Order: sequence, then C-alpha cells, then structure tokens
Amino acid sequence: MTSTSGSFDFTPLLAANLPPAAAKWSGFPKYNFVGGNNDADQVPVAKLLEASTAVLTREGATLATYGLNSGPLGYRPLREFLVGKLKRDAGITCTADEILITSGSLQGLDLVNGLLLSPGDTVLIEQECYQGSITRLTRRGINIVGIPLDHDGMRVDAVEAALKELKSRGVRAKYIYTIPTVQNPTGTIMSEERRRELLRLADEYGVPIFEDDCYADLIWSGKRPPALYAMSKTDNVIHISSFSKSVAPALRVGYIVAPWAVLSRILPIKTDAGSGALEQMVLAEFCAAHFSDHVPKLAKGLRVKLEAMMEALAEQFGTAAEFDDPPGGIFLWVKLPDNVDTMKLYQAALAAGIAINPGAEWSVNAGHSKSRLRLCFASPSVQEIRDGVAALAEVCRKEFGVPSRSANVERAKG
Amino acid sequence: MTSTSGSFDFTPLLAANLPPAAAKWSGFPKYNFVGGNNDADQVPVAKLLEASTAVLTREGATLATYGLNSGPLGYRPLREFLVGKLKRDAGITCTADEILITSGSLQGLDLVNGLLLSPGDTVLIEQECYQGSITRLTRRGINIVGIPLDHDGMRVDAVEAALKELKSRGVRAKYIYTIPTVQNPTGTIMSEERRRELLRLADEYGVPIFEDDCYADLIWSGKRPPALYAMSKTDNVIHISSFSKSVAPALRVGYIVAPWAVLSRILPIKTDAGSGALEQMVLAEFCAAHFSDHVPKLAKGLRVKLEAMMEALAEQFGTAAEFDDPPGGIFLWVKLPDNVDTMKLYQAALAAGIAINPGAEWSVNAGHSKSRLRLCFASPSVQEIRDGVAALAEVCRKEFGVPSRSANVERAKG
Repeated sequence: MTSTSGSFDFTPLLAANLPPAAAKWSGFPKYNFVGGNNDADQVPVAKLLEASTAVLTREGATLATYGLNSGPLGYRPLREFLVGKLKRDAGITCTADEILITSGSLQGLDLVNGLLLSPGDTVLIEQECYQGSITRLTRRGINIVGIPLDHDGMRVDAVEAALKELKSRGVRAKYIYTIPTVQNPTGTIMSEERRRELLRLADEYGVPIFEDDCYADLIWSGKRPPALYAMSKTDNVIHISSFSKSVAPALRVGYIVAPWAVLSRILPIKTDAGSGALEQMVLAEFCAAHFSDHVPKLAKGLRVKLEAMMEALAEQFGTAAEFDDPPGGIFLWVKLPDNVDTMKLYQAALAAGIAINPGAEWSVNAGHSKSRLRLCFASPSVQEIRDGVAALAEVCRKEFGVPSRSANVERAKG
Repeated sequence: MTSTSGSFDFTPLLAANLPPAAAKWSGFPKYNFVGGNNDADQVPVAKLLEASTAVLTREGATLATYGLNSGPLGYRPLREFLVGKLKRDAGITCTADEILITSGSLQGLDLVNGLLLSPGDTVLIEQECYQGSITRLTRRGINIVGIPLDHDGMRVDAVEAALKELKSRGVRAKYIYTIPTVQNPTGTIMSEERRRELLRLADEYGVPIFEDDCYADLIWSGKRPPALYAMSKTDNVIHISSFSKSVAPALRVGYIVAPWAVLSRILPIKTDAGSGALEQMVLAEFCAAHFSDHVPKLAKGLRVKLEAMMEALAEQFGTAAEFDDPPGGIFLWVKLPDNVDTMKLYQAALAAGIAINPGAEWSVNAGHSKSRLRLCFASPSVQEIRDGVAALAEVCRKEFGVPSRSANVERAKG
C-alpha cells in the first residue's frame, strides 16, 4: 500500500496473508479470451424486460423486506422453478427447502468451504481445475490432492489410490470436488458408470462429494448424465450451480442443493441478509416461461463460436495446437508444443492486447499444464475470435518459434 | 446436524466453531418489530419499473459480462451518482475510483474486517451497537472494547481513556467502529465538535475510524453533520453505507468509500465476481432522477410511524417505557423498569407472535442493556404498531408485572 505524505498508513494494520493489491482496472483487452463472460447478443433482453415489468408490478412492494416473503433460502418461486428444472435436467429429486439461492456459484463455493474446511485439511480435486476453486483452497491453507483426468473426466482409479494413501496416513479428506459435467477447463463429461464408481468410493471412504455443475446446461446435444447428487443413495453430495452461464453472469445468481441438515448449518454463515432480490425475482419470472427455450438457442450460438475458434486455431497454429472438440461449455483447453511456456505466452499476449488463461493457473500439476492454455469463446465475436487467434499465433511465433511461419502461411492459403 | 438412517453424516467433517444450525423459516411473526425492513407502501415501485425498463433497453446486453463494462468496483453510473450524493449530503469529496459497490453494507463490514482483523485483535465499538457488527467480531475472535454513549453519541472521553489504557499495554487497536449518524440502536447523532475530537484521537493514537453511515439518509430534519470521512485530514477513515434504508433492503446494494490504497487491498478479497448488476443498474437509473425527492418523502412517512410507536408506548406502558425521540432512523431504543429482563421478554413475546430485539443482543454491556429493547417501526402499519405494542405490554405485564394494569387502563381511557 503506497502512502502519500500526510495520509494515514494502513499497512501495519493489515491482516496477515492478504493477497497482493489490485491494479486499477483499465478496461478489457482487445481480444478477451478469459472469464466466464457470455455472448452479449444472446442476453434475452426483451424477455428479461418483460419479466422485470411483470414481477415488479405484481410484487415490487416486497422489496421493502429482507428476503422478500420467502425467508433466508431465497425467493421461493425461483427455488420452485429449480425443483422442476433439476428434476428434468439433472435427475435430482429435491424440495424447495433443499435449495439455497446464493450470489453466484462463487458464494456457493465459499459457503461450502466455510462449512467444512479448516487450515490443514485435505481435499481431492481434479488436477486441471477452475482457478477460483484452486485459489480459494490455497488461501484457506488446504492440502490439495490433484486427480488426473482422461476423456471421461476425473480418473476414479486415481481417486481410489489417493483415498487409500490418505487413509493409510490416518487422513480423512473433507471432500472430493468435481465439475463432472463439462469440466472446467478440460470440457470432459464424466460417464455415468464412472459417476457410480466415484459415489461408491465416496461411500467406502466416508468422504463426501462436492459437485460443481455450473456449465451443465451448455451441452450441444442437450443430453447429460444424471447429476452425482441425483445418483447418490446416501445423501453424501453437495451440489452447486448457477444461472451465470445459462442466462447472464452479471446477474450473480447461483444455488446450493443439499439436504436440510447441511443447509441448516450453511445458512448461519451466509451473513449477507439474502442475495439480490430483484435478480432472483426477474430470473424466476423469466425462467418459468422461457428457460427451456432459451438454453438450446444459446448453446447453438456458442457452438458456432467454438467452431470458429477451432477453425482459427487449426488455420493459425496447424498441428502445433492440440485440443478435443468439447461437448459443451464456453472454453477450449489447448495444448501447445512442449517448448511453449504459457505463463510467458500469457504475459507477451497481454502486452499485445490478447488475454488468455495460462495452464499453470488452471491446474495443480505444473508440469502437465506448462504448455496448455484455456481460451474462452462465448464473449468475443466470430471476427474477434479469428483476428485474436491470428494475433496470438503471431505472439507465440515471436516468443517460441511456433507455429512456424511457413506452415501457417500454407494452411491459410490452402 | 441430525442424520436419518442410511444418510451420510456430515457432522464429523464440519469446520470448528460453526454457529448453531438454523431453524426452518416459518414466516414473519404477526407483529414484527425487528430487522431493517422498510415501509412496503413507500417502495417506489413505479419509478423502479421505469428505471428498469430504461436501463435494460439501453444496456441489457452488457449483463453478458461480469462487472458489465465497469470493472470490479461496480457499475460506474452508480458510483458516479454516489460521488455527487456523498458530496451533497455528507460533505465527502471522492472520485468514482474511491467507491466500491458491495452486496449491502454487510458485505462492506465483512470486507473491512477481512482487510484488518486477525483473531486476538482489539477494536473499539459503541457499547450499544448493531448486533450484526458484534456477532461478526465475536466470530472472528476479536477483543471488543465497548465505549458508552450519551445524547451526543460515542463518548470521546471514554475513547481516549480506552486508547490510553490499550497503549499502556502495548496494544494498538485495529479500528474505532462507529455509527455516528443515527446510531443503531440509540438513534443519536454525534455532534460535529465530537467528530473533530474523535478524529484527533484517532490521529494521536494511530487508530483508524470505521464509519458506518447506513442510516444517515433517514433524518427528519434532512440535516446532518459532515461524515467523519469528510472531516478527516489524514485519510484515516473507511466509510460504508447502503441503499437498504433509503430505497429498499432486499436490493442488497451498499458501498465502501476509501482511498484507492485501501480499496486496492479490499478488491482482491471480494471474490464474488461483482455484486448483482441488475440492481446496480436499476438503482443508478432511479437514483439519478429521483433519489433526492424520494428520501425526504420516505423520512416523512417513517416519522409518522415513529410517532405512532411513541404514542402507543406512552399509552400502553406509561412511564414504564423510557425513550428519547430519535432524530431519524427506523428504530426506537426503549428502557423498561430494572426488573424486566428483555431476553426473557423476547422469548415470551415471540411465543405471542411479537418480535423484538432484546437489549443484550445489541450491546456489549450486559448490565446496561438488560432492561432495554429495540423496536423497529418502518415495516409494520400504524395499526399493527398500536396493536403490537398493546400485545407486548400485555406480555410484559404477565411476565414482570409492569406496566401495571391500572395505569395502563387509565391512560388508555384518558
């Protein structure tokens, strides 16, 4: 913290272990391939406006009361919509009292962590994993055991080996965190068989599963396996999800699904006097009428952008960029040649107005992630995707000599 | 946590020192004299609807982006409105980059506490104080030094004595927390002279001031002293406030005002990817056009309810209920005879459908607060205030013999 002459210096009073100071925000980079931002053209503005008008006219006066007339779990019509949606899409049978509306799924992460974790605890997570989950665990002083993934998601043989090893040391992990349905960043969907096996291991070792389902609505085929929460026979899963990906991220509305015995311990640590009511009201009104039409349309548009990104990568990087065509989501997990350090690429790209997620920030295995990166495709236009990937290739070539110019020029002409 | 047969038991996995489990919400009591709820008839529904329509039509597509196009400090037009409002009302000169929009002032409390406090730290607070501030400090393991109040607010002679005593033990307090403008629960407004003296002490002892200004808009006269933040010559004040009291509590929009050197350290611990955008957008649009008309109208209506409550207390309790006529706010701080234990009254009243705040929960001085209670008057109707206070008197009489029946009947007839 800098201190100008005569002004009070807060530095000696700061709590220990604060993260470094933020830089002033200077706007988005020209080519923004990071963040969970969505397609601006696909925000259902007219229908949100209709929803807002209807619900404010009917119930606007309830804004005078914390939690409206729904109590601390959140706006009841939104929870009732979710009861139906979760049944339909994820196979989850629950009541409105087993759903807590949160300020995005990020607050869900914080609350579940607050419920279960103390410094020194151990958790299992997918080796490649959402950066926000990793940094939250690191800041809490948690021992992270990273589990490698394959095309079917988290490898359960590795989960079993890790649980066995921990047990031999007398350590009971606090949870197994997984994004089983469109994993972030790998995009994989855990097979139903593997889900069953993971649940069996969770039972056997007495370690619950923390299921983060926030991308599960965005699947090209519209088909997904049942949630782990739905498949559990022993209520040993806590499930979180969000409307950020399916409607709009800036709304900040997510939710936790858990047995009341668990929610009743989470509620007292949710000390914010409720999440934003207007967004809950507008979402509930919008979703009841339009959610099931909106999501496939959105997914279709995202697929177009994904294809633009895959084509641009093939054109600009040739064989130097390896990736699987993901079954859904808003990001692509890309492997570059081993000599490319994506932390360095990230710095050079940012200087050139291109934002990417370096693999090291989305993984707990530095060796495996060093030459990988995550590229988000939902927010930029198709043209920006093309131009941005070309610009990224140029930076990468300059820094690391790949992709080679000749290959690129040939492909571009071909 | 109860566990039904066959279901997973999370109990052994819970973090240490969690608060007790929540009970299921069963609706509001018939006479609800607690909580920061406001007057439902005064929610400016039609104008919020207009604002919502205008801003969604113009900028709805930006909901696709976290933080809209304003970065992590919050929606820029709302911060710009606040720059003008803070100057006009509180005498504060600041820029939009010195304001962080939060999810209610409660998140402001959590963030400032997260910035400065570690277990074992010491803070000074007003002896009678917002319950949520006290419980937050207790949960963090903070040593609380309670400072008595008089009609001019926090007593600075007691602040000086406390700072001196702490210094003699080598303890530097982390902050002096105060609600100087319509103190919660006492309703006092700290005089300008005392503010000056408090700032002098803060400078002398190197202890910053944490100013919570969330009721400052609701003053009957419309006149208030400048904020401590405005009067500080050394930038040693962190200021929080809210739209919960001036517009609608369920919106959950508050803010922190602090030098950028401080905000830049708070931003990285605000890990929620922004507060709800729709509410920020609607508020900004509404406030720019209507805030300065809306607030005096609201205050006038609240004053009517306060008068109903003071009359009902005089009628039902006679001289047994002592209170000052507060200069603003939404609550009345009432002293009952010494033999009344308001914790017991609270239990008995709740069983009779009347919710009150027992003094012990709004004070760090058990002896001083034992026979006191806080009654909120903004949410119930005038008729509910009358009936509820009568019902409370009945419970109090049954439990503690005061107010005596004869006095009451005589006054009611008089």
